[in-house]
Amino acid sequence: MQEYSDNNKTSKATDNALEKLIKATKADMDEVNSLILSRTNSHVDMVPELAQYLIQSGGKRLRPMLTIACANMFTQNQKMGLKKSVYFAAAVEFMHNATLLHDDVVDESNMRRNKPAARIIWGNQASILVGDFLLGQAFLMMVETGDIEALKVLSKAATIIAEGEVFQLAKIKDINTSVKEYDLIIRSKTAALFEAATKVGAMAGGADVSSYQSLGLYGSELGRAFQLVDDALDYGGVKGVLGKNTGDDLREGKMSLPIILALKKANRSEKKLIISALGDQNCKEEILEKIIKFMQKEQILQSVIKEAEKSVIKAKDALKNLPASSLKNLLGEVADFCLLRAY
Amino acid sequence: MQEYSDNNKTSKATDNALEKLIKATKADMDEVNSLILSRTNSHVDMVPELAQYLIQSGGKRLRPMLTIACANMFTQNQKMGLKKSVYFAAAVEFMHNATLLHDDVVDESNMRRNKPAARIIWGNQASILVGDFLLGQAFLMMVETGDIEALKVLSKAATIIAEGEVFQLAKIKDINTSVKEYDLIIRSKTAALFEAATKVGAMAGGADVSSYQSLGLYGSELGRAFQLVDDALDYGGVKGVLGKNTGDDLREGKMSLPIILALKKANRSEKKLIISALGDQNCKEEILEKIIKFMQKEQILQSVIKEAEKSVIKAKDALKNLPASSLKNLLGEVADFCLLRAY
Repeated sequence: MQEYSDNNKTSKATDNALEKLIKATKADMDEVNSLILSRTNSHVDMVPELAQYLIQSGGKRLRPMLTIACANMFTQNQKMGLKKSVYFAAAVEFMHNATLLHDDVVDESNMRRNKPAARIIWGNQASILVGDFLLGQAFLMMVETGDIEALKVLSKAATIIAEGEVFQLAKIKDINTSVKEYDLIIRSKTAALFEAATKVGAMAGGADVSSYQSLGLYGSELGRAFQLVDDALDYGGVKGVLGKNTGDDLREGKMSLPIILALKKANRSEKKLIISALGDQNCKEEILEKIIKFMQKEQILQSVIKEAEKSVIKAKDALKNLPASSLKNLLGEVADFCLLRAY
Repeated sequence: MQEYSDNNKTSKATDNALEKLIKATKADMDEVNSLILSRTNSHVDMVPELAQYLIQSGGKRLRPMLTIACANMFTQNQKMGLKKSVYFAAAVEFMHNATLLHDDVVDESNMRRNKPAARIIWGNQASILVGDFLLGQAFLMMVETGDIEALKVLSKAATIIAEGEVFQLAKIKDINTSVKEYDLIIRSKTAALFEAATKVGAMAGGADVSSYQSLGLYGSELGRAFQLVDDALDYGGVKGVLGKNTGDDLREGKMSLPIILALKKANRSEKKLIISALGDQNCKEEILEKIIKFMQKEQILQSVIKEAEKSVIKAKDALKNLPASSLKNLLGEVADFCLLRAY
């Protein structure tokens, strides 16, 4: 899965960082949400039905909130900047949801955000096409701002995301996938959109080049950390707690970091077990549990989280040269929040 | 199928219009083709492999040629305009091919341009994702020109195409589909890209508003005529000649004009026959032949071609106020060519 699920235990501290971000961006996010709603409209009923089912299904809207926060670090009360950031934020959320629709078809996922995936209700065909519609609307909204530089950032991100997804697909069940290749995949499929979200936010706010580059770096490292934590949670996180989606990556044959590291540490029989389960849609719970136990014994999920920690440190470092503000502090807390989810 | 196939008999006159267009745009199309080749490149091997397989598979590149022709009506020898038109032409071809990749997954097509569809070789998943990549690259190329007005035209077209495809999907096997609804579908899924292709070409050439609107209208009507003829050819055209792809629309349950008109003319038992075949992937050749015979008896394919003729007349009318040039005359011939394919 590419998104963390709501059913993962989060500590009070992490809730606070997210709650604070929600509160800090609320006024603008109301505008973003109206824009999202109006831009899913179509004379073809299936378009708003499917799009709104997904978009209104309780995603946290982290990416558009980051866009708004990064814009408002520079433009509190600047009307024009504000409007642009709202358009960019909605575009980022549309791009994200378009990716989710296509991902669910590619991964043959049945659930998304604790509800049946759109493809289960409307079919794969509609999911592909409504994804295309959302991508088109995302570009249209960006174009309407007239900001060519921001457009370059977001359209570049769109190709990098797709490229990363193809790379991930090409590596399915490839047990020779390297850590470096995994890193390239998550930097493309996940970090690229976080990076674009923060960068175009800062651009909309009128930030100078050095500041929007810094916020882009923050977004990129935050996105990388997020994906690493997600990939750890897919094997139950540090505590090895099994949830609804645990084992999805294993059953889909995804070469995420936990599996790459596990294969490195495994002896012959452990390797055989992992390989037999990899990509087996019908892999039994007891096999999954065995693999998770092995991962815990070898502290593999801790190693994955350590990688995430490195990115969180880099993300926070990237904020250092930016002017002091409560939003800047909040972005630092959001980076920490991302790690706490793993425990 | 959304594209005419090479195996349809074309008269010498039609070949000439197409040959002339190829010749008239050759110098620029060489640049377009290099750009296309370089922009399918990626560190992920599967991307250029799949993309080039499709793009180099003998499509006529009609849309990008139209873009180039419309630009050159205004800018013979204007370097900057020329460069833009090359980027727009490549972007238009990428958008078209992205649509084809997704269409083939949606329609579960096995063949495309007389070769196995990309999805048969690389799978549905790769086809979806490489389609997304091409769409991203299309936007990136347009953004690189810095032309916001043209970007608006092409991103608007992208959403309209997707919307049209969803509408078509929603109407599958819906025997109450009206002629008006069919018209909206083909204006969206096909005519919108032809319209964008000609309009942004003219824009790149520096045409005034009235001229690029006229060429947009030309493109739109040409695209509509094209799709009508394609839809007639799917039932063997006016002569009822059965080819490789004949009956695809029927088997996919597509409510194209021949079926809508046939249902209107059919008596109870004929209606029953058509409905039983509609959407039946395994519909036998003899049933298809019966339906085509009925269509010929009722002159249904002639009626479809008459609709196409109306659009060709409108397309040629749209050219009237443009400055005289050999390219303008050629565009008129191209419109006629589109009709001749039906015979």
